[in-house]
Amino acid sequence: MAVRYELLCEDPTGARAGILHTRRGPVETPTFMPVATHAGFRHLSVEEAHASGARVLLSNTFHLMLRPGIEVFQKMGGIHRFMGWEGPVLTDSGGFQIFSLADDLTVYERGAQFRSIYDNSRRSLTPESSINMQQAIDSDIMMVLDVCIDSTTDEAGTRAAMERTHRWALRSLAQKESRDTGQALFGIVQGGVHNHLRDESAAFLTQHPFDGFAIGGLAVGEKKHEREDMTARVTAQLPKDKPRYLMGVGTPLDLVEAVRRGVDMFDCIIPTKMAQQGYAHTFDGLVRVSRQVFQQEEAVLEPGCDCSTCARYPKAYLNHLFKCDSALGSRLLSVHNVRMYQRLMQKMRRAILDGQFDAVHREMVERLAA
Amino acid sequence: MAVRYELLCEDPTGARAGILHTRRGPVETPTFMPVATHAGFRHLSVEEAHASGARVLLSNTFHLMLRPGIEVFQKMGGIHRFMGWEGPVLTDSGGFQIFSLADDLTVYERGAQFRSIYDNSRRSLTPESSINMQQAIDSDIMMVLDVCIDSTTDEAGTRAAMERTHRWALRSLAQKESRDTGQALFGIVQGGVHNHLRDESAAFLTQHPFDGFAIGGLAVGEKKHEREDMTARVTAQLPKDKPRYLMGVGTPLDLVEAVRRGVDMFDCIIPTKMAQQGYAHTFDGLVRVSRQVFQQEEAVLEPGCDCSTCARYPKAYLNHLFKCDSALGSRLLSVHNVRMYQRLMQKMRRAILDGQFDAVHREMVERLAA
Repeated sequence: MAVRYELLCEDPTGARAGILHTRRGPVETPTFMPVATHAGFRHLSVEEAHASGARVLLSNTFHLMLRPGIEVFQKMGGIHRFMGWEGPVLTDSGGFQIFSLADDLTVYERGAQFRSIYDNSRRSLTPESSINMQQAIDSDIMMVLDVCIDSTTDEAGTRAAMERTHRWALRSLAQKESRDTGQALFGIVQGGVHNHLRDESAAFLTQHPFDGFAIGGLAVGEKKHEREDMTARVTAQLPKDKPRYLMGVGTPLDLVEAVRRGVDMFDCIIPTKMAQQGYAHTFDGLVRVSRQVFQQEEAVLEPGCDCSTCARYPKAYLNHLFKCDSALGSRLLSVHNVRMYQRLMQKMRRAILDGQFDAVHREMVERLAA
Repeated sequence: MAVRYELLCEDPTGARAGILHTRRGPVETPTFMPVATHAGFRHLSVEEAHASGARVLLSNTFHLMLRPGIEVFQKMGGIHRFMGWEGPVLTDSGGFQIFSLADDLTVYERGAQFRSIYDNSRRSLTPESSINMQQAIDSDIMMVLDVCIDSTTDEAGTRAAMERTHRWALRSLAQKESRDTGQALFGIVQGGVHNHLRDESAAFLTQHPFDGFAIGGLAVGEKKHEREDMTARVTAQLPKDKPRYLMGVGTPLDLVEAVRRGVDMFDCIIPTKMAQQGYAHTFDGLVRVSRQVFQQEEAVLEPGCDCSTCARYPKAYLNHLFKCDSALGSRLLSVHNVRMYQRLMQKMRRAILDGQFDAVHREMVERLAA
């Protein structure tokens, strides 16, 4: 297998601590993967991402196929050398983006046709071409192309999307197996907020030799309890010896709830996006640094935080940078937020290994809501 | 004295290598001071500025008095703790900015009145209030408030501005001496492109106990040979035991020419500004990284450069970041450009100490023009 999941400890709640062994080294789970959409963060360097404790970066097939394009990755021999990141990379297949970003979209059984958001050219993405692109990117974990729908879609529509997702998943697997590149491939469980569709999707996909399983189609408009119920329902049906990845989730509180429900891997733009908007994540909730009350505040963002921003800068300075609309402000907050997410994951992992997860879960739910 | 200049070697051309001893440590000269206008760079961190070899940062009294305001510096105990920079800081007095940026400006003998560019409030800046603000900032080197005019101003206008600059310089000195803060104060030689006015200005200011002398009123529209002639003329009249600072200059070629004419200190926004616009400074001229020819370029920006950008990123990646309009691109180029400026200063300093400056000057003039 291109990746191997080693389960170290399963808490009575269902929370798991483990190690995801990849060809670019081991990754302690549960793990949060920061999102370098276009093979880069907007403000953060790969050194800063690594210093945060992040071990896997997520990048995006849809964006990378449009810009810089497959030829650049073929010439450079993949994303690692291109962006200067030596650790594992997971690439999303582009499924979510074609359904949320592409102009003039038509979806056939064969694949999707649309126009580039950059130059309006006609483009297509099929299960096979997505794998080809991900092979050129040379990510360590590839995702199958899936059909993404709104969580409010009715059952018939959700079933149709799920069934096509299954057919595309098998085509992705076949394409991957036609050429051994040493990359892993994850299947994506769909089925919206319908219990029996989620069951059916998990049952179908786990019959096939995927290296891990993602839960897709959540964090797209459903209610919080629906997201939590679907997560618990799906993880209960996934094999214990494979990693589980909840796509696009979420807030610190979402992570705490999903780890409790047996998820190992996460990605989300929230920590870097919120940083750009001037919000710091702390263990005691969100802080808007541009608030006037911080203009002369000598304290750092989060006492006890070991990030380079909290080591050096008083809140008064961050407040000033945001008032000056300086990119450095977004950068310093990104450093903090990405580190806060990693500290949260590390805290949960330690709690699972120490048999204290339930107490930590309770503490976190209370503090994060502050 | 709050600073002390130690002359190590004067080349036959007039180029000087020395050490500027400040209360925050020694600075090897000639030195280039990157510009952190609002107590911060737009993209660069202070760690990156320090890693470039820069030892003095420049910040700006005009901007800092308007935002975040004097109270913040009084509360924080100065700029060093505020922005997390432990080395020396030089503050411009605000003279250049009131004449170039302020709205609704009226200049009296007492000082200048204008409206804030941020909130349109009525503000004033006098020689005394500029020193007060610079004392709150607690910069290591303060500048006198001067009257800045276009180099094309006629002789009568230039003389009037120069004479007022002299009166303001003495008021600044008196204000500084009324309270001993351990900060240095530099006078500013004015006089436009008029030989005898420059002579008169240098003769007047060097009679007074300034810690160093700046050459102002250049790089504001005059011809290249005028700038070089005025620089040589003024430095010839400045005492050898005080530092000379050419304000707001310049391109790498300008620095090479000014070092040859006996200047020790420089500041300019060019390296960081050009980085934001996608230009890399190299010893062989400017490179626009977004050029299509670099889309698949595996080489780094400048082989032999020891900056962290050249250590990690192929030009293809920088090209991609600029096409994606990513702030990271400006950041990585800023790291390179600021380091290139420091490498240029180090190369010139070594050449002066080795008696090779004339040859290095010739080499640099040829290569930089490429």
